[in-house]
Amino acid sequence: MEAKSYILVTGGAGFIGSHTIVELLNSGYSVVVIDNLVNAYAANEKQKPESIKRVEIITGKTVPCFNIDITDKKILNNLFQQFKIDCVIHFAALKAVGESVQIPLQYYQNNIAGSNTLFQVMQENNVKRLVFSSSATVYGTPQFLPITEDHPTGQGCTNPYGKSKYFTEEILKDVCVSDPEWQVILLRYFNPIGAHESGLIGEDPSGIPNNLLPYIAQVAVGKREKVNVFGADYDTPDGTGVRDYIHITDLAIGHLKAVLKLNDANFQGCEVYNLGTGRGYSVLEMIKAFSKASQKEIKYEICKRREGDVASSYADATKARKELDWIATRDINDMCFDAWRWQSANPSGYDQNPSIAR
Amino acid sequence: MEAKSYILVTGGAGFIGSHTIVELLNSGYSVVVIDNLVNAYAANEKQKPESIKRVEIITGKTVPCFNIDITDKKILNNLFQQFKIDCVIHFAALKAVGESVQIPLQYYQNNIAGSNTLFQVMQENNVKRLVFSSSATVYGTPQFLPITEDHPTGQGCTNPYGKSKYFTEEILKDVCVSDPEWQVILLRYFNPIGAHESGLIGEDPSGIPNNLLPYIAQVAVGKREKVNVFGADYDTPDGTGVRDYIHITDLAIGHLKAVLKLNDANFQGCEVYNLGTGRGYSVLEMIKAFSKASQKEIKYEICKRREGDVASSYADATKARKELDWIATRDINDMCFDAWRWQSANPSGYDQNPSIAR
Repeated sequence: MEAKSYILVTGGAGFIGSHTIVELLNSGYSVVVIDNLVNAYAANEKQKPESIKRVEIITGKTVPCFNIDITDKKILNNLFQQFKIDCVIHFAALKAVGESVQIPLQYYQNNIAGSNTLFQVMQENNVKRLVFSSSATVYGTPQFLPITEDHPTGQGCTNPYGKSKYFTEEILKDVCVSDPEWQVILLRYFNPIGAHESGLIGEDPSGIPNNLLPYIAQVAVGKREKVNVFGADYDTPDGTGVRDYIHITDLAIGHLKAVLKLNDANFQGCEVYNLGTGRGYSVLEMIKAFSKASQKEIKYEICKRREGDVASSYADATKARKELDWIATRDINDMCFDAWRWQSANPSGYDQNPSIAR
Repeated sequence: MEAKSYILVTGGAGFIGSHTIVELLNSGYSVVVIDNLVNAYAANEKQKPESIKRVEIITGKTVPCFNIDITDKKILNNLFQQFKIDCVIHFAALKAVGESVQIPLQYYQNNIAGSNTLFQVMQENNVKRLVFSSSATVYGTPQFLPITEDHPTGQGCTNPYGKSKYFTEEILKDVCVSDPEWQVILLRYFNPIGAHESGLIGEDPSGIPNNLLPYIAQVAVGKREKVNVFGADYDTPDGTGVRDYIHITDLAIGHLKAVLKLNDANFQGCEVYNLGTGRGYSVLEMIKAFSKASQKEIKYEICKRREGDVASSYADATKARKELDWIATRDINDMCFDAWRWQSANPSGYDQNPSIAR
């Protein structure tokens, strides 16, 4: 085994993973990536995912990357034998809410059984530092705003995706109770959008985007006709849903700060941090901001509310500011401008040849 | 494949499994059993578990039984190819609350990942009828008594064992939402005790019993010195904890009734039933009843409360009476008498040669 130690990033070819790796590399960390390519594009099986190639361009560094599924214990174990892993950032998960309702067993297999296998391999290899990619979805319908980390979780998680995040959090809390050597940080993301300022990496959803911003961006670039606004009769200033959008680079830096926190000798057990800006924007405000950034008209249509959507959700991010020395610095215009730079330069995402089936 | 159809019983060599199989066989069903023998005794690897051998003696029928772990998808799949499975009763799980706190990842691997694998194999083989062995532990600390099936679940499940039951229930609810062909019954057990009236099968805990009744029985038989009573200052008639004990044969018949319910053409989706008597007995009442049944003095000592224990817990079993035509008919004296018959005839449980390490 090499003497050099690495941060293992699972699901590193994805949207949040790739941006996080840039920040880690730029801060001097060495990173090894695994990804099963279910949601990431590679030209062929022997090539690295396109997102990782571009991370290498941005940073000028080489990133070892393997097509490994976290449900495969034996292969995971080999990786831990091959690389000296200091810490794991665990992004790998299926993430489409609607799909999770259709095929729950696959979601639980990937997200729960896969995570549990990863944690077992970590334990067996004496690697007990982890940053877990959780979500504000674990809060369910907000009982108060802004949402603090003390807000109840697991109640009103209505879909298998959200439940899988909640269950994995609970598993990690139990692991920390069972073995005080574990150091775990759960990061609950609000709504990450935007793209790296280089325009080289960004969000590349396959099929119809599940999230608002990629959808708006695809309308702006002419790929889709109009944005469907689900509900304009909510109890919000303009009637449309309010969410806490956060620039992907700010979110990525949050992971870097979490890794620094794990290196703090006084850090013990399991801690939870919200990553959000602390303020919300409505759907119509986002459309307006994106229209300004792209200088394109964005058509939209008001539709019926979607089941399971809430009026407003935004973070209290005080704890991350105090304990991680982290704060989101990029505003809504940065988010839209960077998203537009990425989308207009990469209208088909990472796939530069749209005729190749994804 | 044979034309004959079977009920697959996972964890069939265990306490509840073995008693349920007796009732199924006596009602004319054919049963195939899998068990990984983690908690069941077999004389050697080539022999059937002792409990299953005794089930065969009681019923005069042969029970195909395989040493299969539910986490092994390939072997499970082979079994579904070999036998025509009409319905699954899923008991297989690790079940020691205290141990689950020590080794949570193994519990989640077995109970969650294993269950999920079983459900995937069922789905892939178009077997969509299931009775799941859940527990009143999913209710956490009771918010009201008696506990109905509408009582909130998942809040205050403080250990991985309890959470694994709760998570598996949630997975099954999601499966039923995703595919209306599934028919699932979740049975939430209160405190099963007693033994089959033949005295041939009963509860055979390895090591120090986790539950009150096997502990009392081992004191009565002279294997342990005294019963530790954890707390005599609860808000109950005599100050000791009150639980809803149910005779294992009544519980087993509840499973038979659940299988009959699944055969009802009108049954759809996922239904939950409490299996309890609807009344509680205190620790001291149980010691007294067991002393009467065994005609032995049972020494006990009052100790401090145990963390996580509640004062009282008992079921509202009305729903099972109305919808499953099921009611517990065996009283506390039956429970203690049958437990004593089993314990006194089998002081070392199924292992007739106590010198063999378990």
